[in-house]
Parts: sequence; structure tokens; C-alpha cells
Amino acid sequence: VFDMANETDEIGIARGLAWTSVGGDTLQIEVNIMPGKGEFRLTGQMGDVMKESAQAGISFLRSISKEYKIQDDFFKKNDIHIHIPEGAVPKDGPSAGITMATAMLSAMTKIPVRADVAMTGEITLRGRVLPVGGLKEKILAAKNAGIKMVMVPAKNKRDIAEISQEIKKGIDIRYVENMTEVLENALAK
Amino acid sequence: VFDMANETDEIGIARGLAWTSVGGDTLQIEVNIMPGKGEFRLTGQMGDVMKESAQAGISFLRSISKEYKIQDDFFKKNDIHIHIPEGAVPKDGPSAGITMATAMLSAMTKIPVRADVAMTGEITLRGRVLPVGGLKEKILAAKNAGIKMVMVPAKNKRDIAEISQEIKKGIDIRYVENMTEVLENALAK
Amino acid sequence: VFDMANETDEIGIARGLAWTSVGGDTLQIEVNIMPGKGEFRLTGQMGDVMKESAQAGISFLRSISKEYKIQDDFFKKNDIHIHIPEGAVPKDGPSAGITMATAMLSAMTKIPVRADVAMTGEITLRGRVLPVGGLKEKILAAKNAGIKMVMVPAKNKRDIAEISQEIKKGIDIRYVENMTEVLENALAK
Amino acid sequence: VFDMANETDEIGIARGLAWTSVGGDTLQIEVNIMPGKGEFRLTGQMGDVMKESAQAGISFLRSISKEYKIQDDFFKKNDIHIHIPEGAVPKDGPSAGITMATAMLSAMTKIPVRADVAMTGEITLRGRVLPVGGLKEKILAAKNAGIKMVMVPAKNKRDIAEISQEIKKGIDIRYVENMTEVLENALAK
Amino acid sequence: VFDMANETDEIGIARGLAWTSVGGDTLQIEVNIMPGKGEFRLTGQMGDVMKESAQAGISFLRSISKEYKIQDDFFKKNDIHIHIPEGAVPKDGPSAGITMATAMLSAMTKIPVRADVAMTGEITLRGRVLPVGGLKEKILAAKNAGIKMVMVPAKNKRDIAEISQEIKKGIDIRYVENMTEVLENALAK
Amino acid sequence: VFDMANETDEIGIARGLAWTSVGGDTLQIEVNIMPGKGEFRLTGQMGDVMKESAQAGISFLRSISKEYKIQDDFFKKNDIHIHIPEGAVPKDGPSAGITMATAMLSAMTKIPVRADVAMTGEITLRGRVLPVGGLKEKILAAKNAGIKMVMVPAKNKRDIAEISQEIKKGIDIRYVENMTEVLENALAK
Ligand SMILES: [Ca+2]
Ligand SMILES: [Ca+2]
Ligand SMILES: [Ca+2]
Ligand SMILES: [Ca+2]
Ligand SMILES: [Ca+2]
Ligand SMILES: [Ca+2]
Ligand SMILES: [Ca+2]
Ligand SMILES: [Ca+2]
Ligand SMILES: [Ca+2]
Ligand SMILES: [Ca+2]
Ligand SMILES: [Ca+2]
Ligand SMILES: [Ca+2]
Repeated sequence: VFDMANETDEIGIARGLAWTSVGGDTLQIEVNIMPGKGEFRLTGQMGDVMKESAQAGISFLRSISKEYKIQDDFFKKNDIHIHIPEGAVPKDGPSAGITMATAMLSAMTKIPVRADVAMTGEITLRGRVLPVGGLKEKILAAKNAGIKMVMVPAKNKRDIAEISQEIKKGIDIRYVENMTEVLENALAK
Repeated sequence: VFDMANETDEIGIARGLAWTSVGGDTLQIEVNIMPGKGEFRLTGQMGDVMKESAQAGISFLRSISKEYKIQDDFFKKNDIHIHIPEGAVPKDGPSAGITMATAMLSAMTKIPVRADVAMTGEITLRGRVLPVGGLKEKILAAKNAGIKMVMVPAKNKRDIAEISQEIKKGIDIRYVENMTEVLENALAK
Repeated sequence: VFDMANETDEIGIARGLAWTSVGGDTLQIEVNIMPGKGEFRLTGQMGDVMKESAQAGISFLRSISKEYKIQDDFFKKNDIHIHIPEGAVPKDGPSAGITMATAMLSAMTKIPVRADVAMTGEITLRGRVLPVGGLKEKILAAKNAGIKMVMVPAKNKRDIAEISQEIKKGIDIRYVENMTEVLENALAK
Repeated sequence: VFDMANETDEIGIARGLAWTSVGGDTLQIEVNIMPGKGEFRLTGQMGDVMKESAQAGISFLRSISKEYKIQDDFFKKNDIHIHIPEGAVPKDGPSAGITMATAMLSAMTKIPVRADVAMTGEITLRGRVLPVGGLKEKILAAKNAGIKMVMVPAKNKRDIAEISQEIKKGIDIRYVENMTEVLENALAK
Repeated sequence: VFDMANETDEIGIARGLAWTSVGGDTLQIEVNIMPGKGEFRLTGQMGDVMKESAQAGISFLRSISKEYKIQDDFFKKNDIHIHIPEGAVPKDGPSAGITMATAMLSAMTKIPVRADVAMTGEITLRGRVLPVGGLKEKILAAKNAGIKMVMVPAKNKRDIAEISQEIKKGIDIRYVENMTEVLENALAK
Repeated sequence: VFDMANETDEIGIARGLAWTSVGGDTLQIEVNIMPGKGEFRLTGQMGDVMKESAQAGISFLRSISKEYKIQDDFFKKNDIHIHIPEGAVPKDGPSAGITMATAMLSAMTKIPVRADVAMTGEITLRGRVLPVGGLKEKILAAKNAGIKMVMVPAKNKRDIAEISQEIKKGIDIRYVENMTEVLENALAK
């Protein structure tokens, strides 16, 4: 059974798309930010590539924090925890990068993430969005979960073109080149 | 032989349900909170999925601590230790998540946990309760241990429906969707 | 050859009972407490189950430290070292739990442990005593070492009943349910 | 497909050249410097030789920081993060040494790196440039990516001589002996 | 070839005896104490049993430091380094325990260790000396190295009795039960 | 091809001699000392025996620092980094001990190391020089690199005697027993 999209926009939660041996799936990435001492915790059986992706994301967010009026000492005085249920399922790869960064920025700014949006894409330290695999299965999974808009890396345009209209129907596919575009689409107005 | 339910409600102790190769079992999860420096200790041969579950639980509790009038510096000034006897038996999996969180909140607030209650369910960082396996064996183990009420994830409703009335008789089964519901049922009034 | 019981009651030393492939043995557990910064050191080739047992013991003692008039900052200002000779012999399992806790409390309070007492039992975070194995061999080893009283978990009563009177003769066997009973029997008056 | 050279000079980004089993490739090395506490983070599935290269580079930069008017406490008050996309591809070897050092110095001084320059070479703690392998494939990859100038270790002069003029045409190859020469060529005026 | 005994008594150096597959050997254990922050460094390819032995030794010395007029904060304000040449030869086992403790106390107090003394024996946290193996080979090695007095554990008395007079001739063998006796014999007057 | 000796004496660089499966080689050991917090970094794919050698060296230097007028807090306020190019080649063994110590002292005191000197020898915590292997190949490598003087452990005198005059011609071989002698020969006047 598929987890359906949330009914309301939530702070600190963003929807990613995963590609597994049995097809695509949605991943609801959760972020909590708590008064602390700058610790960064990653749970949900993440592999090392995924953990490095999360670290690239947090460094990118630190570099743009001023634009979001986040105080200089925010990252020293708070702990950030990213968790990806289901806790027993191993997860890896860089394609949840932009989703983790979006959920973190939402938790930091208290701006909710749109409930009907999902996304997939590798993030770089400078906020560029790099291409990923498994687009067809991911689009399908998003659709089954009731998602309305899916962001994909601009460099995956050709892969999207190869997917049948049948599958893409009803999903608003947006090509993104960098995190600025991702956040513009993902954050609730 | 089964460990029987405690006779009196206790602070910092909650009853979980485990599913082993030889059937269900009850797990009495113990939590001590001590003046310290924010350390988090997990003992009882817990595997890494279970340890991550405990971490998701503590982060969730930190995010709702204000509702329970817990001071901001509580988590910096205290150490939290979760232990699951029997110490030589390896334990893993996410299904003790809500039980560990319940025992921790009880230890933090000094509100006892009802002695006749057991529970099973994965916890997420945001306090959602996710479905788990082995329900039939777990219900049976709870019954044999003299438990009166068992909380199970709402998403396991179908699995519970498939268990014979014979087995479920005498157990008050409650479906829970989030930790708020878990705590309402578990904490002594 | 068996190590004989000590001639005089000593501070920070308690006698445990081990079960090895070649029979029972006594373990003289040594504890030193030194001005320090809260470090906890475990030596003597202890396995991880045994180390977790020691940690459960120290957390239990921290939770009852007020009853023994131990200052709040005792555990921050001192280092605790538990060593089990012989240093080259690997040791594991939870059954030295109550012995390690007894030796630690003795070292903390400067109350000697009775030289003619040995004990075996798993300790929980809340000071409950859980059953262990190898009782027959352990009783025999205690007897050979000149021990007068042996504490065993109350839940092992049935196992003790199965041991021949021949073996048990001359040993005062005490059933214990929690650390309060253990300490009452073990500490010198 | 090849990543093309950037259109504009950027701060904290330098282009390296890698040699893989399927030919040469360009590596866009990204560096972020953030207010912090002196942490040094390396992501992008770097092997230990590459990580040590990065450490040699940062120590070299610390030793020459005065020449670039970098404050004494800069390295205590900032965190430095080097990331090499693509995050799922393992990378190793010492040949990205001078590129990582160049990207770091650019991020430290806010002087952009020329967009049309790529480089390859091992760095030593004293800033010497040591020879590397795979020159032919690397030159080819640089050319395909639209790079105009490639820096190579002076000690690789003979290897470059063996490459056909056909391949080298259109690339300005510069021999470098130390980081001073590298920076002179790489930093935008 | 055998390392000969030192010509003069030295501070922080004590001579142990090892038992290897090719016979006995002497080990010159070196200790440096330096102004620092309480670090304890062990080098010379020591195995974990030997490292735990060193830790038992340092804890024992901390517990008796007052008797030697060593200040309370000595262990916080100094670093202790134990090194056993030859650095490429793996060493393990508990039998260097009393030698390491002797060398450390000598370095702490600046009292030299007698150059013509060697010793072997396991140390416990309370300074008891436990029996070890390989006595015949060790006595022989000590003799070849020009040692005059060898300390062995009192519990090895029977093993020493079995060694031929031929071998023992010229060596003053002392039986020791605890570190007090070891230090009395080892430290220069 | 062999790395030739440096043309000028340099601070923080000393030449060692290695013995590999394909013959001897010279190793140019580089040391940087930077304002820091007492960290000790070792790069260049060093094995654990070599790392322990470096640690023995630094402890020795700390113990004699007063003779070189190095302030007490020097080791707390600075970071020391030893790097051995070439970064991808694994290196191990204790024979670079005296070379690493020489390069470190040079970096600490700003006294240059003579460019035409190479050396090989294990260092102990007390500055003794222990014998090493591969002397013939090492002497040959030094000669090919244009080295004029080679220091070898006094205990290797017999091994040197066995090498043909042909090979030794033109190299001034000095036997050293301790670091005092090493430094006297190595440091520029
Ligand atoms: Ca799912
Ligand atoms: Ca991996
Ligand atoms: Ca059970
Ligand atoms: Ca696991
Ligand atoms: Ca024994
Ligand atoms: Ca184990
Ligand atoms: Ca590429
Ligand atoms: Ca490697
Ligand atoms: Ca030897
Ligand atoms: Ca071992
Ligand atoms: Ca070479
Ligand atoms: Ca090794």
C-alpha cells in the first residue's frame, strides 16, 4: 500500500521519491530542530552516501542562512535531526538530497512544505541539482500517493521525455537546476 | 515462563511486545534519568535499528517537552539511560519505539505508566505511529502476561482483524495513530 | 587451584561466580574510585554484555545515591574503574551484574564487603535481580573457595532445588529479588 | 556526457581531472566556508588517500595564510567543507590535491577561480606539486569540457611530450612545480 | 643478541620479561611524563590485554599516589606515555603489568629503577600480583642480559621450584605478592 | 627515477630511507607546525607502526623541549602535521622514527636540516636509536639521490661492515646511538 500525500502542509516534512528493487516509493522525510549544541543526527538506516548528501545539504543551507534571516549562532545553539521512516529499511544514494535540504529549511524557518509536492535530485554543496535515476518508477509512485507536483533535475529532461504520457498525466513535472528553484516550488506561500 | 504484568504502576517502566523465532514475548523497558551532562545510554544488546528508534523517540520528546512543562535545559543537565533486560538477548527492530518513548516521558515527568498496559509500534520523529509485524504472537504474549490493554498502530487494523476472537478475548485492543494517543492511554491518571 | 575467600572484609572488592566450559569459578571483582572527571573504565577482557551490565549497575547506583548520602557531583568528580582479573581471560554475560554493583557501592561508600560472601545475578536498571545459569557449578566453586554465604536470584529457586543437598551443605543460600536485599547481605555491618 | 566548464569564474569552485576505468573525467570541486569551530568536512565518497590529500592541502594553506592576509583565528572560527559531486561515485588518489587546495584558498579569500582552467597534481605539505598518472585521458576530458588551460606537474613533462599534438591542440598546458605557480594561474585577476 | 642490562639506574625505565615462540626475551619499558591534559598513550604494538594491564596499573598508582606525595591534580595536568621497543614487534598479555607500573611510578616520583632488576607478573587494580607463564625462559633471558635480581609472583613459587638450579644460579629470585613489595625491590635507594 | 637531495637546507624537512620490495628509496618527510590546539596529524598512508613511531618521537621531543628553549605551552597551542609523500604509497615500519623526530625538531626550532643528509633508525621514547633492516638498499638509494652523509644506528655496525666498499664509497656513514647525536649531525650550523 502507498502512503498518501499529507492533507495539510507541514513544517519540517518533505516528500522524496525512492527507487527500490520492487518499484518506486515515496519517502516522508522528517526533520526536528531542538535547542542543543550543534549536533546533527541522521536516523532511519541511512547509508553513507545518503548521510553525505545530508551533510552537503546542511552546509549549503548554512551558506544561504542569511537570506532566510537565520541567526549566525543558530547552528551552534540547535540540534538538527533528520529521520526517514520506515526505520528498519536500509536507504542509500544521493537522490534524497534536495528533499532533506527542503525539510531542513522548512524546520529552520517554520515555513510549511506543500503537502502535494514530491521531489528527487542530488544536491551539491553550492545548491546545484544533479541528475538521478529511476524517474519512471518515481513518477508512478508519486502519482499513486496523490502527489500533484514533482520536481526533477533539469538534467533529467531527456529521461522524463521517454516516459509515456499515460504515466505523466495529472502530474505537474517541474525541472529544477538549483535549490532556489526547489524552495520556490516547495515552500507554502 | 512469562514475566507477569507489574502489580503497581511504576515510573520509567513500560511494557513492550516482541516477536521472536519462538513466539511472542513481553519486554519490560526501564528508563533512568540522572543529573548529568546530556548523555544518552542504550543497553541490553540493542541493534542499530532499535537504537535509532530510541533516538527518534528522544528527539520527538524534546520537541514536545514544553507541553509537559519540562525545562529547556533538562536534556543538557540530565543523562537518560534506557535498558532492556534480559541483557544477554540481542534485540532489534523499530517496534519498541513507542514503548521506549513512553517509558522516557514517564521518567521525565514522574507520571507512572499503567502496569496493565502493553504496546507495540514504530515511532517517527514527529510522533506518528507506524505499523509493525507479529501482532498475533504479541497479543498472545500480552494475554499470558496478564496485560489488560494493548495499543497497536492504527495501520495494523487489518492484521488485528485476522486474529481469532478466541485470542483477542479479554484484551482491550486500542488503535493508535500518534504518540499523543499512546500517552493518553499509557500514563496513569 | 581455587582462589580462596579473602581473610578480611575489603572495600571495593566483591566476589562473583562464573560458569566456564571447565566448571564454575570465582571472580574477584575490584573497583577503584579516583578523583577524576566522570570516566568509567572497564578492564579484564570483558565482553559487551558484561560491559552493559556494569553500565546498568552504575546507573542504578546513581539513582539511589541519595540514600547512601553520596553527593550529587560525585559521579562528575570521580572516575570509576572496574577490573576483573585474570586479565587475559575473556569474560562475558550478565551474571556478574549484582557483584559489580556491590563492589562499586562499597568503593563509593567505603563500607567493606563481607569476605565470606559470593553472589550471582543479572541486574536491571531498576535494581531488580534476574535469573542466571550454571547454578550448580557456581555453588560448588563457592564452596571450594571457602565461601559461607551465596546470594542467588529468587527466580532461580527451582534450579537451586534441583541441586543435591550434598553440594549445598555448608553454604547459606539466600534468594534475592533486588539490589536492596543484595546490599543488606553483602555489606559488612 | 561531459560537464562543460562554467561560464563565469566562481568563488570556492575549482575544476580537477580524474582518470577512471572508462576514460578521463572532470571533477568540479566545491568548497564552502562557514562560521563554525574549526571542523573540516570531506564528502563525496572520498577514499582515505584523497582525504589525506585534502588535509595536506589545508595544512599548507594554514602555513601560508599570512601572505593572503587571513586572520590567525580563521581556522578556529570557521568550518571548511569540501564536496565532490557526484555523491555516489567513489573517488580516491592524490591527484586532486592541488585542485582542492585551490578551491579552498578561493573560498577563504573570496578570489574567484578562472572558469576555463583545470588542473591535476599531488600536493605536499610544503606546497610542492608531485607527478600523477592518466595525463592523456585527463587532457582529453578537459578539452571535451571546453577547458582552455590545464596545469600539470612539471615532473610529468615527459608524459605530456608523449601525447599527440592532435590531442593537445587548443589546450594551453602549463607545468607547475609548486602551489604558488598553481594559484597564480588559477585565480582570476 | 640480547639487550644487556643498563649500566646505571634510570628514571622511568624498567625491565620486563617476555615469553615468545623462540624463547624468553627482556623488554625495556620506557615511560615519559609530560605537562599535558591527562592523556594516557600506549605505543609499541601492544595488544588489548597489555593495554588493559597498563590501565589497571595507572589506576592502582592513582589510588596510592598520596603515599608518594603526588599532587591530586598530577594526573589531570600531565600526559603519560608508555612505549615498549621494538616498535614493529606485536606484544600482548598481562605479564608486563608490574613492570609498566614500576616504570610509571619511577617517572612520577623521579626515583630511578635499579638497572640490574627485572620482573614479571600480572597486576590487579588493587596492586595484587598474579601468576604468569614462561618462567623458565624468562629467567634464562634475564640471566643472559646480565640481570642480578628477578621478581616473580609468589603464586609462581611451584613453577620456579621446577626449574633446574643450573639455570637459577646467579639470579636472586624474589617472590612478590603485591606492588608494595615490587616497588621496595625495584626502586633505587 | 630518484628524487635528488634538496639544493638548500630547509626547515621542517628531513630525508629518510625506505626499503621496499623493489629496492631502497628516499623519503622526504615534511612537517608543518601551525597555531592550533595540540593536534597531531599524520598523513601519507602511514601504517600503525609508523604512526606509533611518530608518537614516540613527539613524546621524546616534549621531554627535551626545555633544552631547545621551547615554551611549556608550545604543544598545547600548536598543531603538528607530518606528511610523507607520495600520498598513495602505503608506508610502515619503525625505521623512519629518527627522521620524523628530526624534521619535527627543525620545524619547532626553525633550525634547517642539512640538505645532503639522510638517516634511518627506530627511535625510542627516551631517544635511543634502535637497529633497522635493509641497510644495503638504503645506502644505495641515498647515494643515487646525491646524499653525502647517512646516519645509521650504531647497533647496525655489523650490517654496514658486510656491505661492499664499492657501494659505500662517497657516502660518509655515521653511527648514532641516540637522538642527541642525530640532531648534532642533521641540523645546519
Ligand atoms: Ca513505504
Ligand atoms: Ca557505502
Ligand atoms: Ca522473557
Ligand atoms: Ca543493523
Ligand atoms: Ca580463577
Ligand atoms: Ca557480544
Ligand atoms: Ca562526470
Ligand atoms: Ca585506502
Ligand atoms: Ca629483543
Ligand atoms: Ca585481544
Ligand atoms: Ca620515490
Ligand atoms: Ca599494523
